[in-house]
Amino acid sequence: MLTRQELIRNAEFTFASFGFTPIDTPALEYLEVLQGKGSDETDKQLYKFKDHGGRDVGLRFDLTVPLARYAAQHIEELGTPFKRYHIAKVWRGENTQAGRYREFTQCDFDTIGTKSLAADIEITLVINSLLQMIDLKNRNPFAPFTRFKIRINNRKILNGLLDKLGISDKTTAVLRSLDKLNKIGKAAVIAEMSENAGLTQTQAETVLQLAELSGSNEDKIASLQKMLDGNAIGETGVAEVSTLLQAVNAAGVPPERIVLDVSIARGLDYYTGMIYETFLDDLPEIGSVCSGGRYDNLAGLFTKQELPGVGASLGLDRLLAAMETLGMIEKRSTPVRVFLPFFAANRLNDYLRIAGYIRSMGIGIEFYPEAKKLGQQLKYADRRGFDFVVIIGEDEFAEDKVQLKDLKTAQSEKLTLPDLVEVLHERLR
Amino acid sequence: MLTRQELIRNAEFTFASFGFTPIDTPALEYLEVLQGKGSDETDKQLYKFKDHGGRDVGLRFDLTVPLARYAAQHIEELGTPFKRYHIAKVWRGENTQAGRYREFTQCDFDTIGTKSLAADIEITLVINSLLQMIDLKNRNPFAPFTRFKIRINNRKILNGLLDKLGISDKTTAVLRSLDKLNKIGKAAVIAEMSENAGLTQTQAETVLQLAELSGSNEDKIASLQKMLDGNAIGETGVAEVSTLLQAVNAAGVPPERIVLDVSIARGLDYYTGMIYETFLDDLPEIGSVCSGGRYDNLAGLFTKQELPGVGASLGLDRLLAAMETLGMIEKRSTPVRVFLPFFAANRLNDYLRIAGYIRSMGIGIEFYPEAKKLGQQLKYADRRGFDFVVIIGEDEFAEDKVQLKDLKTAQSEKLTLPDLVEVLHERLR
Repeated sequence: MLTRQELIRNAEFTFASFGFTPIDTPALEYLEVLQGKGSDETDKQLYKFKDHGGRDVGLRFDLTVPLARYAAQHIEELGTPFKRYHIAKVWRGENTQAGRYREFTQCDFDTIGTKSLAADIEITLVINSLLQMIDLKNRNPFAPFTRFKIRINNRKILNGLLDKLGISDKTTAVLRSLDKLNKIGKAAVIAEMSENAGLTQTQAETVLQLAELSGSNEDKIASLQKMLDGNAIGETGVAEVSTLLQAVNAAGVPPERIVLDVSIARGLDYYTGMIYETFLDDLPEIGSVCSGGRYDNLAGLFTKQELPGVGASLGLDRLLAAMETLGMIEKRSTPVRVFLPFFAANRLNDYLRIAGYIRSMGIGIEFYPEAKKLGQQLKYADRRGFDFVVIIGEDEFAEDKVQLKDLKTAQSEKLTLPDLVEVLHERLR
Repeated sequence: MLTRQELIRNAEFTFASFGFTPIDTPALEYLEVLQGKGSDETDKQLYKFKDHGGRDVGLRFDLTVPLARYAAQHIEELGTPFKRYHIAKVWRGENTQAGRYREFTQCDFDTIGTKSLAADIEITLVINSLLQMIDLKNRNPFAPFTRFKIRINNRKILNGLLDKLGISDKTTAVLRSLDKLNKIGKAAVIAEMSENAGLTQTQAETVLQLAELSGSNEDKIASLQKMLDGNAIGETGVAEVSTLLQAVNAAGVPPERIVLDVSIARGLDYYTGMIYETFLDDLPEIGSVCSGGRYDNLAGLFTKQELPGVGASLGLDRLLAAMETLGMIEKRSTPVRVFLPFFAANRLNDYLRIAGYIRSMGIGIEFYPEAKKLGQQLKYADRRGFDFVVIIGEDEFAEDKVQLKDLKTAQSEKLTLPDLVEVLHERLR
């Protein structure tokens, strides 16, 4: 919970620094708002019931549908561009698995009401900052989280190619076959494309050529420009990718961190332009920890006003699982690092005064609420994971000093109260 | 939402500085955990249904029942004393009123597993710090939130008096009548006490004498010591109050902020020792914004292990309503105060580079995602409530400078980028 809280705070800080505003919506929505808005699967997984007024209601299964409902209702007052983030619980009545629960947290951020590519670029920068911030704050010497890749694509690239080949109507079937490339291999995919989608051998081979592009981002862009030459949709897609890559580099993202990957598709019927996925170099198998893309119309089911947008979702639960696997989670169950035992039984008021003084200097300190033997309290401090103990017995009170014990080195020193504060400030940094 | 978020962050900071650990529990609990654990009213208001596995479940109506269930399950691993806080949503299917919703946030903090009065004292200090922190962070020149009173009482005082009078078995009836004092007056209360609870005239008058104590805390304590002389329960109650008052003063709480009020009762059947309520001097009519007390056994319905505790609940929604009434909520809809318009259309990369630099210096800045006329973007900045705009057109790019416009004074100045950062750091402080 402490690590989760820190992750959320860092995410909030990052969103805010780009001007994204927090919103919240109720957990319960009218059933008609939720039903038929996701997949058949989310419909089945809906937690639904009648409320006390006989209204059909359900627990939200994601934060996109509530955003669409909210935007349709309030976009006039909010105005566009509207940049929001939303960190909240969602519920799905599915079978639980490792790292997959019926209640989980989503962390979405979107810019709504603009088609400008600058918004897509900014979303890429936010993804980069989110992952960097996690690393920074954890100060892990091995810094695994600067070791991540943002994989990008643009739906217009494949759309352009299919358009150029005159098979735009076969997009869904082609994507389904392409998805199996790693499993069934090239030949089988080509065979399937001919059988199921009715592509010619040449058409199928051209599509595969696209999916198998390799080399640097620049190499891929050059190949794509050639392949899509003369097709407006495809050319736009390649130009968007190219502009985005240059812009995020200009903004300070290391070039090797952004990878153009023409094979990622995500959200078949939803995304229409840029697409993002984010993988940890040290744990790619955990899957994308931050994904999203551009969509044409967020709230078409709720309002006639067209609301284009671009956004992504940080996978908090997945990140936490990754941090655990990578040994990035500290084993401590206390939010503060300094402990004050209570063992001179008649000195309660003095302990409280001293604890208050230390807190007023910006240092959190836990005071033990019962006058017990010091040994017992030191065991408690050890079990909870404190780093420092401030020991004050009658001797120390008489000398007007305190003993600072470092639980890691087991070394102690006697200090005046102002010196204690100074030493702690330094060691806690 | 921005103010709510700030309130929650300040509360979290305060809890942490005293060593309280955050916990979270699922919104849905098995129905048997929730039902019959509150009042008949909460049973009626329960949102309940069958989940996909046919299990009866419900949405939690408070955070105390989930804490009891959680503590009963985990207290062995957690160990005692266990200091936790929990800020989360709860649901009640009741009729909505102003400031009262079917979904609302509770903010509870408790120390479990100790009977020591030091824990009760600490809870009082946390309440004091929570309210002070709100004030501090808002830096309101009229500082209404240093203007609050924590009203305390101890259930053992009334229990002791009734014990001394030999009418311990009539506590509930006596409390019910006492509760009406302000409405029906002294004579009617005495009459009711004789009729309903069977008290003699003298007994009823003695009880009323207690409820009507006035003067300073010291005066009240002196009177109580006299009234309860020789009764162990009552004497313990008075001694606890007296010790607590001295201790919180020693810890730096101004004496006038803590008021002994023998008339407050709260949680008839639940609290057994200290009781707390907190009122804003400038808006007492909004009711207590932070209330709680000591209880003997948190989880008696879930485990045989006795878990005494003391805690309170910060009324976030009520505090927000109070802050709104008292004009303490800023009218702005942006989490950052600096805005960067995008109007030199070919300079996207330069804008992004500059925005990235400013953010890297710890200053949040929102960049407008579309190249539009400056006037339109300044209107947007005004509507959103930004304080500063960093204007960079072709002229400024040529000079390698930026224009900083203060939206409040409408004054502008040209600055180099490092100077801009310095000036903003100063003005945003």
